[in-house]
Amino acid sequence: MMTWQRGREARNARIQAGARLAKGKVVDARDATRLMEAVVRPGDRVCLEGDNQKQADLLCAALLAVDPAKVHELHMVQSGVVLPEHLDLFDRGVAKKLDYAYSGPQSARIAKMLFGGKIELGAVHTYLELFARYFIDLTPNVALIAAVSADRDGNLYTGPNTEDTPTVVEATAFKNGVVIAQVNEVVDKVPRVDIPGDRVHFVVEADKPFFVEPLFTRDPAAITESQILTGMLAIKGIYAPYGVKRLNHGIGFNTAAIELLLPTFGEKLGLKGKVASHFALNPHPALIPAIESGWVEQIHCFGSEVGMDEYIRARSDVFFTGPDGSLRSNRAFCQTAGLYACDMFIGSTLQIDLQGNSSTVTTSRIAGFGGAPNMGSDARGRRHPSEPWLQAGREADPEGSTLLRRGRKLVVQIGETFGEKNVPLFVERLDALDLAERLNLELAPVMIYGDDVTHIVTEEGIANLLLCRDASEREQAIRGVAGYTDVGRGRDAKMVQHLRERGVIRRPEDIDINPLDADRGMLAARSIKDLVHWSGGLYAPPSRFRNW
Amino acid sequence: MMTWQRGREARNARIQAGARLAKGKVVDARDATRLMEAVVRPGDRVCLEGDNQKQADLLCAALLAVDPAKVHELHMVQSGVVLPEHLDLFDRGVAKKLDYAYSGPQSARIAKMLFGGKIELGAVHTYLELFARYFIDLTPNVALIAAVSADRDGNLYTGPNTEDTPTVVEATAFKNGVVIAQVNEVVDKVPRVDIPGDRVHFVVEADKPFFVEPLFTRDPAAITESQILTGMLAIKGIYAPYGVKRLNHGIGFNTAAIELLLPTFGEKLGLKGKVASHFALNPHPALIPAIESGWVEQIHCFGSEVGMDEYIRARSDVFFTGPDGSLRSNRAFCQTAGLYACDMFIGSTLQIDLQGNSSTVTTSRIAGFGGAPNMGSDARGRRHPSEPWLQAGREADPEGSTLLRRGRKLVVQIGETFGEKNVPLFVERLDALDLAERLNLELAPVMIYGDDVTHIVTEEGIANLLLCRDASEREQAIRGVAGYTDVGRGRDAKMVQHLRERGVIRRPEDIDINPLDADRGMLAARSIKDLVHWSGGLYAPPSRFRNW
Repeated sequence: MMTWQRGREARNARIQAGARLAKGKVVDARDATRLMEAVVRPGDRVCLEGDNQKQADLLCAALLAVDPAKVHELHMVQSGVVLPEHLDLFDRGVAKKLDYAYSGPQSARIAKMLFGGKIELGAVHTYLELFARYFIDLTPNVALIAAVSADRDGNLYTGPNTEDTPTVVEATAFKNGVVIAQVNEVVDKVPRVDIPGDRVHFVVEADKPFFVEPLFTRDPAAITESQILTGMLAIKGIYAPYGVKRLNHGIGFNTAAIELLLPTFGEKLGLKGKVASHFALNPHPALIPAIESGWVEQIHCFGSEVGMDEYIRARSDVFFTGPDGSLRSNRAFCQTAGLYACDMFIGSTLQIDLQGNSSTVTTSRIAGFGGAPNMGSDARGRRHPSEPWLQAGREADPEGSTLLRRGRKLVVQIGETFGEKNVPLFVERLDALDLAERLNLELAPVMIYGDDVTHIVTEEGIANLLLCRDASEREQAIRGVAGYTDVGRGRDAKMVQHLRERGVIRRPEDIDINPLDADRGMLAARSIKDLVHWSGGLYAPPSRFRNW
Repeated sequence: MMTWQRGREARNARIQAGARLAKGKVVDARDATRLMEAVVRPGDRVCLEGDNQKQADLLCAALLAVDPAKVHELHMVQSGVVLPEHLDLFDRGVAKKLDYAYSGPQSARIAKMLFGGKIELGAVHTYLELFARYFIDLTPNVALIAAVSADRDGNLYTGPNTEDTPTVVEATAFKNGVVIAQVNEVVDKVPRVDIPGDRVHFVVEADKPFFVEPLFTRDPAAITESQILTGMLAIKGIYAPYGVKRLNHGIGFNTAAIELLLPTFGEKLGLKGKVASHFALNPHPALIPAIESGWVEQIHCFGSEVGMDEYIRARSDVFFTGPDGSLRSNRAFCQTAGLYACDMFIGSTLQIDLQGNSSTVTTSRIAGFGGAPNMGSDARGRRHPSEPWLQAGREADPEGSTLLRRGRKLVVQIGETFGEKNVPLFVERLDALDLAERLNLELAPVMIYGDDVTHIVTEEGIANLLLCRDASEREQAIRGVAGYTDVGRGRDAKMVQHLRERGVIRRPEDIDINPLDADRGMLAARSIKDLVHWSGGLYAPPSRFRNW
């Protein structure tokens, strides 16, 4: 006779084995590795919470210390491969297979380990896509998560960094998986319940707070005049004519420049209240002046940002906050918002090819996708109209039937023609293709595909790809803003001139911007200290950003 | 001086006003209308939980009974406009503006009210898209939700019908909104915590359980031989060659036929374990025989289905269930899974035009979108490969660069050439266009756009639109499976023959299916009673489906 409760029985057995080490649900940190050996089974799918911000670092170390004879061949299914220990798990033979989304600081080592066959790669995902698979075919058997505090029933308080936790826990706990949380402290009553205790099986009290990376802080002091120029072009040439209110910004210096130009350059253009009022965005410190100037109505956040806690708490009209006053972030909902409720995604990249495909991969680094491909793709399931979306759709297909013509998400790539270390942004062929060939991947790790990109902004101007009618126009529009890179110098000058006459390419002077005006004096804040000042002392930057 | 806690102060004032009617958080049902008058303000955005399944019917009635001099011009932002009272709110002047996703049973009246200017329409959305906007620009001030039980702290138990509740509550509670829950009973301790109490401000004990509609039950007795034939074609002609494991099924009889053919016809083809193993799906009773025959590994559900509770509880290896044993559904996550983790969406529709656009709208009915456009669109943000997805991509673009070629979601429309009451499925022009013109909409309510559709299946055969190289081939491929409808009779016989030779059109005999074999004897269950039998008596169909 078939049994249909095998998963439930297996979970009960795991919990029973772990309970020997616990008082109620609470396990001493010293017993964390024994807990892993008691609960985790060879071949398990394990989600180790580690996104691009907070890290379940204690549980990771505990898992790393298991006896590989007892716990081995794990299939890690996790947002971020960020800590060195995440990869040590594979070196030690504890883990075998990997499905993930992001690997910023480990991008070089992960590439090396993939080349060396040390890791069996499932796939590289976007966050939302990996979350989706948690409910279909990558459901974790064990989730190792991080929270600020827990009570003795296992109710968890995540504080501002809720991030992926509700999603991971829901997929695991309701499909017969075991949820283990590391917390900074066990308390009598949590300030708010981010995760109900009946979904949490074990709580480990860590001796130090979980690690959080300040990933979204850009020092205004490092913003260049060329970045300011691209920001001015974007505001006047894209935000204004489309009237983009609902949007997401990437994390680079170009979009930081835009954030700091809104209350100055944007204000002069009379755009306040007309653009950039509703964001799906982490709490970028660079947005403080725009918030304080009354530009921003509402921000929903993927995660939080180190140092922003008190500022957010004092600005509950703008941010989503809990009854305890602190931010409630949620990566799954914010990614969904970025996909379906935003009219624009704007961000920078490392390489753009002649079709407009872009990638942050180099031949020796696999940074993963994070959330950009999700937000930077046309959402074909979208059915609600908005003026920016409809206008982009009209530009793409002016002859189409009015009623059957869909709108288009604005997907903007912004950067200087030569990036860091003078490396050209534009290339004939993406490094991602070489990497895919070397790794025998089924498709190249393209961040944003050319057919989803609507605009490319450089200091040379704006290429509006929506107005291109074929592949060769598209190529020349890209070459036309590629400056003195090889790709730029390979342009067909006559065709580029023709595209400019049609408004496909717009130079700064075509929209009355004088590049000489792109001055650091335009920035609403020119240093981290200025941001602190704007915040009324509420923003508390991490020490590495303080030079006073 | 600017204040940044206006929302929080306003919420405190609302809660204080409501608290006068409450004992702790609990409000007597007789005071529900007074609670509305105390808490809801003119012009508020209000989410009245009402999706396609469960309904916060008591709170709806309470809102309807307010004094419109006190509460008026509400902006309703809700998944479903399903109960007559949802529209009465507009007739009474309590509500003014509407953003919604689905309006099945009210589709005729909603159209009439829109024609008459009784409702100011925001937009018609898919579920996930509306959820996304809850976090960006349609955040509710007040959420009126439904749960099975609450404790005195406001912790909620939703039972199997969790559905939209966590999403609605998260958007409202963390952005200074007020959450009011109707529950079937107030208890000392809830069986599991679906919504933590600190997100819930008031609890109203209803005198009868909230209304749930059995929307996903299809009586096998009503399945026709022609539907069986289309099901056989889909299984042998699409499921098998693409090897589709992760999928979503629509709610019509054609996909019910497929579900009942898997353990018979599918088994004979040796497909068990090779296709249809992982679903994003409501708990369709018609899937019971496939589950019992070991076809289905895992199902994540949008909502539940009346009568399936005990069956689900006894099959926790297949379904997501809580510590209490009952289903944990979640519409937001399941829609995300349908979008990003499924390789195929297959469903039926009312009208298909010559470009393959489809719609369930008629000139006098606006049924809304529900979830189909989200799941039935190519997910361009997807980055993980799978064999079905890659194969579809290759068929669409055989000449493309291997590494830069994306895969494609399989989006299959299935139906008979003549539907109910002998109305043709294929039309030259969708009724949706007339409706959009009459209502002055900015775009026609198209359910699935032709450029997202990959296959159309009728009793005449399968049209594989991926293999069409231009619009005229596409049109002839569609005409080629449109039978004796006007569209079908307008085919270019020579071109259709040519398309058949190329495998673009495949007739039943082309894949060795004899239409005479399409017999009701092929169905694993031929009645609701058979389904009960398959379930070992665990499935308890609602009385309207019982004739014994």
